Amino acid sequence: MDERLKKQLDFALEIDKEKNIFRQTHLSGHGRNENDAEHAWHMAVMAYLLREYANEEVDIAKVMLMCLIHDIVEIEAGDTYAYDAESLKTQKAREDAAKEKIYSMLPEDQKRELIALFDEFEAYETAEAKYAHAMDNLQPLILNNSNDGGDWKGHEVSAKQVYERQGKTKLGSERLFEVTDQIIRENIRKGNLKE
Amino acid sequence: MDERLKKQLDFALEIDKEKNIFRQTHLSGHGRNENDAEHAWHMAVMAYLLREYANEEVDIAKVMLMCLIHDIVEIEAGDTYAYDAESLKTQKAREDAAKEKIYSMLPEDQKRELIALFDEFEAYETAEAKYAHAMDNLQPLILNNSNDGGDWKGHEVSAKQVYERQGKTKLGSERLFEVTDQIIRENIRKGNLKE
Repeated sequence: MDERLKKQLDFALEIDKEKNIFRQTHLSGHGRNENDAEHAWHMAVMAYLLREYANEEVDIAKVMLMCLIHDIVEIEAGDTYAYDAESLKTQKAREDAAKEKIYSMLPEDQKRELIALFDEFEAYETAEAKYAHAMDNLQPLILNNSNDGGDWKGHEVSAKQVYERQGKTKLGSERLFEVTDQIIRENIRKGNLKE
Repeated sequence: MDERLKKQLDFALEIDKEKNIFRQTHLSGHGRNENDAEHAWHMAVMAYLLREYANEEVDIAKVMLMCLIHDIVEIEAGDTYAYDAESLKTQKAREDAAKEKIYSMLPEDQKRELIALFDEFEAYETAEAKYAHAMDNLQPLILNNSNDGGDWKGHEVSAKQVYERQGKTKLGSERLFEVTDQIIRENIRKGNLKE
């Protein structure tokens, strides 16, 4: 087998490990913790189905790919919970080292391409990055809402903290932020989230 | 919330259940059984990375979406193991009923669109469908190969059965079928697959 294809298949096998990176979010029906691969799949499908609500026109293939690969670095760096202040401080350094290591398994052109796409997501500047982040927020929100806010209750997360993160959804989609806001308010009213 | 968005979000929550549909394939490192959402994610990423090997030019966004949604019907119909002759007989009828039920949760235009995409995948005729099927074959093959053919050994699958299914990979990618053939031969040599 030639070197290029061998590298691509080795990388394809390596990313199987993303299925063992577990998140704080639980599956609907008060299920088990979700893993990164499932989260990425769910985000990508939602991105496609909800693209009419993006604030700006987006290249949906690029958004889907961004969703699919945005957590691959966590195979090396581990998951960082959105409301864990200590881990958030070291997240960028850990993920930068991780992206260099894992994407170096690919042929050089694909390494550069996927790192650029990951960096674009992280930079939160393009229409695609802002809309992909809206999915990164909305996907766990609908699961958590379906479970009576269990993930927030378990971590004693406050409404302020949730708004700090979920508020950015409006950069990608004003309409989906309206729904987000409605869901957060309902969860405050039900006592699932501390005011 | 308007009716259209409500339907889209209800569907988004419903497909969370795909994470509980387990396949016969095991994760690398002799891990647990893989579920449909993980499989779909893995296929979609591989489809993007390996698109240079497709026999024909493909619309890669369409391929990725096809990979992402191709098993949603299994939420209703259950997984059908590739080498289970009895289940294969009823698979089409079960999946046809399932697709009508689950996609009816979406607004009519999106229901029609996703059913058409699923039907295109199943019909195995377009360049996109043939290449997506190559991923549906190659993805479990590389996991199973990494586990010394454990899934084949567990089900006493023969090389003939594997070639019947994996042989179709050449319709989507001659080059990836060469690799497939090489992997199957190695597993026969090692005694992981009965000749």
